[in-house]
Amino acid sequence: MSKKDIKLRAIVAPVPTVVVSAYDENEKPDACTLGLYYTCSHRPPCVTIAINSTDRRKTLKSILKSGAFVVHYPDSDQIRETDYLGVETGYNADKLAKIGYTVTKAEKVNAPVINEMPLAIECKVIHTSDIGSHTQVTGQIMNVQAEESMLDANGRIDIEKLDPMVYDEESHSYRHVGRISSRAFVPGAEMKKTFDKEDGVKK
Amino acid sequence: MSKKDIKLRAIVAPVPTVVVSAYDENEKPDACTLGLYYTCSHRPPCVTIAINSTDRRKTLKSILKSGAFVVHYPDSDQIRETDYLGVETGYNADKLAKIGYTVTKAEKVNAPVINEMPLAIECKVIHTSDIGSHTQVTGQIMNVQAEESMLDANGRIDIEKLDPMVYDEESHSYRHVGRISSRAFVPGAEMKKTFDKEDGVKK
Repeated sequence: MSKKDIKLRAIVAPVPTVVVSAYDENEKPDACTLGLYYTCSHRPPCVTIAINSTDRRKTLKSILKSGAFVVHYPDSDQIRETDYLGVETGYNADKLAKIGYTVTKAEKVNAPVINEMPLAIECKVIHTSDIGSHTQVTGQIMNVQAEESMLDANGRIDIEKLDPMVYDEESHSYRHVGRISSRAFVPGAEMKKTFDKEDGVKK
Repeated sequence: MSKKDIKLRAIVAPVPTVVVSAYDENEKPDACTLGLYYTCSHRPPCVTIAINSTDRRKTLKSILKSGAFVVHYPDSDQIRETDYLGVETGYNADKLAKIGYTVTKAEKVNAPVINEMPLAIECKVIHTSDIGSHTQVTGQIMNVQAEESMLDANGRIDIEKLDPMVYDEESHSYRHVGRISSRAFVPGAEMKKTFDKEDGVKK
């Protein structure tokens, strides 16, 4: 394929849209929406989020002060509320109260769980690093709470049932989850087996 | 909603499946597949990847030694090859040669671009941190190359045309990109406008 140079930028799409919450210095819950979120360790399970540290981000301040946060997955019926939590700042409005959402203290960390959202991942801050315009905050996962109707037969999340908001930064839109194209780790393992056979590799 | 505690783990889905490449100490190209990848800064544009440092991961060693890597998006016609690059290790086989893929040196960093993949993001390592089982590697983006047929009218990536492999760790499957549900930043801005009006906030 012949490729051409395009505008310099990070391209990471599609990604889940999540809402991150923390208690501020007055124990009032803050929350903001973000798409910069990934798994950074399997053992122990950890995630890293990135929040703009050059803009006014009240939730970042609250996370760094309290040392804890909760990552929530909204569902696609919560697009307006979730988008609002990303557009407005906690310095201007009590955002959660505005949209009529309520919180309960997390079970294992000092951070608020948003009752109305179907999946909540409780995190303890274990590492931070400043990269360019953003601060990376790594959280070790201390507890995961899920609405039972979102689970599959194995107790894992059925993301078609969850119907998360999937952010596509390239078109500035939210998407639904797409259909399955293939099982993972099976086509590659079959290919490896074929190559190993050709090469006379004994198992 | 009433939620119940489920098995402790990181949940980040759906995410793009990418192939990361680097030159090893003998200038031979290495590549591996991963789903642990996100944008960590907008200015300058940077991405962070996480690679298991407790397993045998030749590509991690090559990235740390060379100080550069390229992130590629395969398309959904490259599922077998991409899955193989994640299942096999570079210590056992010359994986890229096995699948008949070729490389060209990147334009701005010392790392190989896989010619057969439609999108390549050239990165210079600027930060690393060890978190649990994985090493986080942050790369500043120095160049982006894309197959012209993947671009929309604004020169951005049309991810429906790209048809990336979207990994769903919950069901261990690859998915296609889903359909658009809403524009981003518009429903929330409208909600904010309504609240501001109710509160008598002057613009």
